[in-house]
Amino acid sequence: MNKLDQQPVPGRRQLLAGSATALVAAGLGSFTQAARAQAASQAVAPAVKPLPAYVSWKDANALILHSSSTIETKRSAMGMGLITPAEQLYVRNNLPAPAPTILENRDAWTVSVEGVKSPRALSVAELKTLGVETVAMVLQCSGNGRGFFPSKPSGTPWKVGAAGCVVWTGVPVREVVELLGGLVSSPEFMTGTGGETLPEGLDPKSVMVERSLPVAAMADALLAWEMNGQPISLAHGGPLRLVVPGYQGVNQIKYIKRLAFGSVESDAKIMAHGYRISPPGSKADVSQPSVLEMGVKSWITNPLPERPGVAGRVQIQGLAFGGLRGIKRVEVSVDGGKSWSRARLVGPDLGKYAWRQFAFATTLPAGTHTLASRAIDTAGFIQPEQRLENVGGYNNNSWADHAVSVTLA
Amino acid sequence: MNKLDQQPVPGRRQLLAGSATALVAAGLGSFTQAARAQAASQAVAPAVKPLPAYVSWKDANALILHSSSTIETKRSAMGMGLITPAEQLYVRNNLPAPAPTILENRDAWTVSVEGVKSPRALSVAELKTLGVETVAMVLQCSGNGRGFFPSKPSGTPWKVGAAGCVVWTGVPVREVVELLGGLVSSPEFMTGTGGETLPEGLDPKSVMVERSLPVAAMADALLAWEMNGQPISLAHGGPLRLVVPGYQGVNQIKYIKRLAFGSVESDAKIMAHGYRISPPGSKADVSQPSVLEMGVKSWITNPLPERPGVAGRVQIQGLAFGGLRGIKRVEVSVDGGKSWSRARLVGPDLGKYAWRQFAFATTLPAGTHTLASRAIDTAGFIQPEQRLENVGGYNNNSWADHAVSVTLA
Repeated sequence: MNKLDQQPVPGRRQLLAGSATALVAAGLGSFTQAARAQAASQAVAPAVKPLPAYVSWKDANALILHSSSTIETKRSAMGMGLITPAEQLYVRNNLPAPAPTILENRDAWTVSVEGVKSPRALSVAELKTLGVETVAMVLQCSGNGRGFFPSKPSGTPWKVGAAGCVVWTGVPVREVVELLGGLVSSPEFMTGTGGETLPEGLDPKSVMVERSLPVAAMADALLAWEMNGQPISLAHGGPLRLVVPGYQGVNQIKYIKRLAFGSVESDAKIMAHGYRISPPGSKADVSQPSVLEMGVKSWITNPLPERPGVAGRVQIQGLAFGGLRGIKRVEVSVDGGKSWSRARLVGPDLGKYAWRQFAFATTLPAGTHTLASRAIDTAGFIQPEQRLENVGGYNNNSWADHAVSVTLA
Repeated sequence: MNKLDQQPVPGRRQLLAGSATALVAAGLGSFTQAARAQAASQAVAPAVKPLPAYVSWKDANALILHSSSTIETKRSAMGMGLITPAEQLYVRNNLPAPAPTILENRDAWTVSVEGVKSPRALSVAELKTLGVETVAMVLQCSGNGRGFFPSKPSGTPWKVGAAGCVVWTGVPVREVVELLGGLVSSPEFMTGTGGETLPEGLDPKSVMVERSLPVAAMADALLAWEMNGQPISLAHGGPLRLVVPGYQGVNQIKYIKRLAFGSVESDAKIMAHGYRISPPGSKADVSQPSVLEMGVKSWITNPLPERPGVAGRVQIQGLAFGGLRGIKRVEVSVDGGKSWSRARLVGPDLGKYAWRQFAFATTLPAGTHTLASRAIDTAGFIQPEQRLENVGGYNNNSWADHAVSVTLA
């Protein structure tokens, strides 16, 4: 076995854009896998880091590999991506993914539902008979944009690419609750617990993925078995994921094994101490706001420094979303935020939890321009200029941080 | 080089669902590519046919390989797929795809626009500065459903899977026409010509891909460079494709090199004799209706004979679309069409050219049931019970043909 056999498969774009020349030059009539891999590895510089096995099916060329459990989508790969293909979607796992054996019989996976009149475990097979809904939503790591904090918080320095817009299909949580007799009393929280295998020798509470959300979040939540029309992959929480539209990624519980309604917030470390908006200089604690709803946010995807284009007519393009609310409008600035013009919302509206594409046509002279975008949600909240400083580097929706400086020839 | 090196990469689902057991059983701690491929090829029966090189990046497990240029999506792979991932989308090429070298510099590809006041060639780079729009639409081969014709027309016997719903981004044709000074006179037709390399020694008109459409089709047509947010792959017509929402696939010209407005329909064979609705026993000729707009159509994707489920509560699910018009409602029958119930439209509405998901919850006893669906578009057109018989096996939207017989345990 040669070294190439141990490397992940080159991504599609790498094959098409990179290896084609080499192969044609070599006069090869047909592509063999080894030849393609070899050509790709020769043609593309710098070499693309191999992806870990559980995500080896992803498009390495569209991704930035921070670590085996933190993988970012390149801003330049986003295009006018209404829906982010699974192959390009970021990955952020708080614990290593469970063994792929849990996908052998997806329908047999069970989730226990507690805090309802008739609490019990339900299999995926049963859930599929109860109801079905589809929602398009932005999935975003709460640390997306951490890479723009000058304080350099610990954690992955994501720029814009710990986010995607994906489509989930599953059963509405409210329908499951109804079928189990309704909620007991008036719980304040909906708590989801992940089914990851916990490392031995540690207090489970210190590592488990368990998050509590205001019970109102139940309204549009799903227990989902499909993402983008396919059974959910291991990397993204299959066979069953709790999906809570409008909330930051950490609340979207993968491999969900327990869904409990009650009056007490989880005391797992990831809830009690992790993911808190801690003022600079403080230590995280339970009195500080937790990372819950996403704020209104947008960023430009074209032009970019790595793909500036030329002076003249330019189509400035980007993506905008509002967390719990839809997007009302987006403004674009070509002078670093001194003046703003209204952009056009483009393409289908997939609902308030999805992102919207925007475009603004203008004419720009040669030289360097600072391009910024600013989104306004349907309740009138405006994407702020400045980030809210916090120790963990969470919830960055500053338009100034997301501006790009582009030099047109 | 062993034999596995020459085979395409196993699809994601194959890896996750098929090889995991074998690997875990073998006690392997990490996945190497060769091991994965080997495990997958051992674990999956029957063996999946290798895909041709130009589509080797597709998900072989989701596809039926009719020939190297005709590849169908399995009905069972469709799920509640709002948007069909590129990896699962059917392929139908009238000519072999051009050399992948045409994707080396996508922005340099040019299309000549004729029949406008200032006719000229425009590069993709220029087109990208002119305007940008995104449309979600059903892409369907006009022969989709041919496999249900008892007359066994020549051509690929597609069942339901020569169709998908995809998102295109490009510049509206009407904006290009405007920028070139508008149309000359009042042309009847918009004619697109594909940029395939034609086989030598044949009359070009006998093989070229060139189709004329009523000029009204221009209204929502795009010259598109992205599909599903990514640069269009070679298999699907990259770097530039003419996209005409609501029309059958043959009219969506790949590698478009010429877009002409005029009063004469193309005399290429594919237009003059091919893709005509020829009555049984007749020969195709130019007096017969051409394959243009798609008819209103739907089919069930769950349950299916290969995934029947059990007696009791069942969620009957499927997909419906209306060609040039949106879907008003969908009805489902569990008794082979004797009685009908209104299904619920599910998930986001991506616009009139996209398909809608539908679901109908019911209770079914053990035994065999004939499940059918029937879509009604916003103008009131009803999906017919019977296909219109024709020599080529085109435009089959019969609900009876698309019914499934499912045996519940």
